Amino acid sequence: MAEAETPNRSPEIRKDKIHNRWVLFSPARSRRPSDFKAKSNPQPNNQTECPFCAGHEHECAPEIFRVPADSTNDWKIRVIQNLYPAVSRELDFQNPVSLVGDVAVSGFGFHDVVIESPVHSVNLSDLSPAQVGEVLLACKKRIEQLRSCDSIKYVQVFKNHGASAGASMSHSHSQMIALPIVPPTVSARLDSMMEYYKQTGKCSLCDIQPNELLIAESDHFISLVPFAATFAFEIWIIPRDHSSHFHEIDSEKAVDLGGLLKLMLLKMSLQLNNPPFNLLIHTSPFQDDPSYAHSTHWFLQIAPHLSGVGGFEIATGCYINPVFPEDAAKILRDVRISNNNI
Amino acid sequence: MAEAETPNRSPEIRKDKIHNRWVLFSPARSRRPSDFKAKSNPQPNNQTECPFCAGHEHECAPEIFRVPADSTNDWKIRVIQNLYPAVSRELDFQNPVSLVGDVAVSGFGFHDVVIESPVHSVNLSDLSPAQVGEVLLACKKRIEQLRSCDSIKYVQVFKNHGASAGASMSHSHSQMIALPIVPPTVSARLDSMMEYYKQTGKCSLCDIQPNELLIAESDHFISLVPFAATFAFEIWIIPRDHSSHFHEIDSEKAVDLGGLLKLMLLKMSLQLNNPPFNLLIHTSPFQDDPSYAHSTHWFLQIAPHLSGVGGFEIATGCYINPVFPEDAAKILRDVRISNNNI
Repeated sequence: MAEAETPNRSPEIRKDKIHNRWVLFSPARSRRPSDFKAKSNPQPNNQTECPFCAGHEHECAPEIFRVPADSTNDWKIRVIQNLYPAVSRELDFQNPVSLVGDVAVSGFGFHDVVIESPVHSVNLSDLSPAQVGEVLLACKKRIEQLRSCDSIKYVQVFKNHGASAGASMSHSHSQMIALPIVPPTVSARLDSMMEYYKQTGKCSLCDIQPNELLIAESDHFISLVPFAATFAFEIWIIPRDHSSHFHEIDSEKAVDLGGLLKLMLLKMSLQLNNPPFNLLIHTSPFQDDPSYAHSTHWFLQIAPHLSGVGGFEIATGCYINPVFPEDAAKILRDVRISNNNI
Repeated sequence: MAEAETPNRSPEIRKDKIHNRWVLFSPARSRRPSDFKAKSNPQPNNQTECPFCAGHEHECAPEIFRVPADSTNDWKIRVIQNLYPAVSRELDFQNPVSLVGDVAVSGFGFHDVVIESPVHSVNLSDLSPAQVGEVLLACKKRIEQLRSCDSIKYVQVFKNHGASAGASMSHSHSQMIALPIVPPTVSARLDSMMEYYKQTGKCSLCDIQPNELLIAESDHFISLVPFAATFAFEIWIIPRDHSSHFHEIDSEKAVDLGGLLKLMLLKMSLQLNNPPFNLLIHTSPFQDDPSYAHSTHWFLQIAPHLSGVGGFEIATGCYINPVFPEDAAKILRDVRISNNNI
């Protein structure tokens, strides 16, 4: 486990220029950054009778596709419908006529699940870089299918690990929700990145200078702790080359990303004691204004949950982060992962 | 406990016109709205040796004032500094020179605590309407003090009840954080209310038509479930008369609000099995542009936590609410509170 000598720091308020929001950094009085650990990470209790395990396929909602496509009992990945979808693929959708007053549209959309392994006890970070890459390519393939639906404007890919990060199944899986609207945080991100582009002539993520915030690099990606991280030990993985949409990723880059993502998950898990976390793919809407092409750049966020969210965060959208990004990055850089694990 | 016959509803996506964000309403498959209960609400474990209890004042950070002002051991309310503040009153503050690139300012601000009763086991809803009114007036008084500091732009008052809603002390208290910046959710709310005003010539909260969303009314306030509630059984209490700032409240209105707030907390607690919750006062920045005076209207939000927040909500800012506001309002209207409790 990495231990870092860290300087005494005063509270600071930093601007997250990607999301255009402020984050409060206030070092905890009694803890060093290297002391942060998840206290416990209870998993949803469904070790036995898990419908995501191989052999239980008939207990699931309908399958969309599997990997390999021609596999039977020996599948590696399954993409299925969510049994309890947040939105319904069976509804019609019409854009609202007016946006004044009480506006409601039908809850049309798609809510799918990516089962990342046939084996219950296997975590995403247990897979090889190539296997993690296959999971990413399965997401890409499903997004490309959803893109053919004219009413769908945005697809959010997310993974909840641990009950307190929102997981209701312990078997490793990701989810994606395809929506007929552009969600508010996505709009704010697009507008903020566009503003940066207007002011500087550059994409805000192409222009990032990680310096002491860098954790690791691969051929096509860099991983870092963002300057105004919302969560303690938050990690971003950013493509080196400018690209607005995650689904533009190719097989070579997916395997490369798979390796770096695996390394980041192993480092985080070892340093923070297998914390609950969310893994999020931040991409761009399908039909976005072409003027956004130069300013939007997809990236991947890993958000460990070391403390809960309270009323202040809900009311203000300002998060309080007790660990300075420079300290988190140094600690994560210094975590050693044995080659056997990679 | 109220039971409601509720119609079958299809998923719907509604616009929260106050915050300019979308909320997904997707009725849970297997539960009626009246079946929603908090499973458990663990309290932070500090029943004994609580520094907020009468007689332990010396264990707390410095006191700012108490109510009554001339009380000794018989105080009713104490406003004190937070021992572990998120921002520091000892730093200097300077506005950032530029907002491009990596922007950071000193973490200047005030983080205070309002101890709502000298007795450990007393909840806010156990107090009389007049006593709840006194707590509100203590918040008003402290906000007016903070307003005299030129660098402070916004004060967020919030209460966390229950460990999973962010509370670290079980003794009933509220907190306020005074910031040198306007937080992102507050800016979005102000802009959205201004947009409504521009389009309609009316304040969005003066113009609200609660109809089937109404829960109860008092002389000066109404309580309702908002049309696009973020959380299941969320409640708003709105002043009938237009007012931008909470600290404009007078003593009569504070007692009136105290009674309605107490009633809402009792109804929520009885119906939902004493859930974890946040209580939030949404007011306006101090030095806001006078052109916002007609469009901004303060209100109070009660947000029960019946389910956790997962990656989808973090990534998109879209919340998934399994209970339609019309159903929640009917259930809360029908909860009977004995007069002995009021």
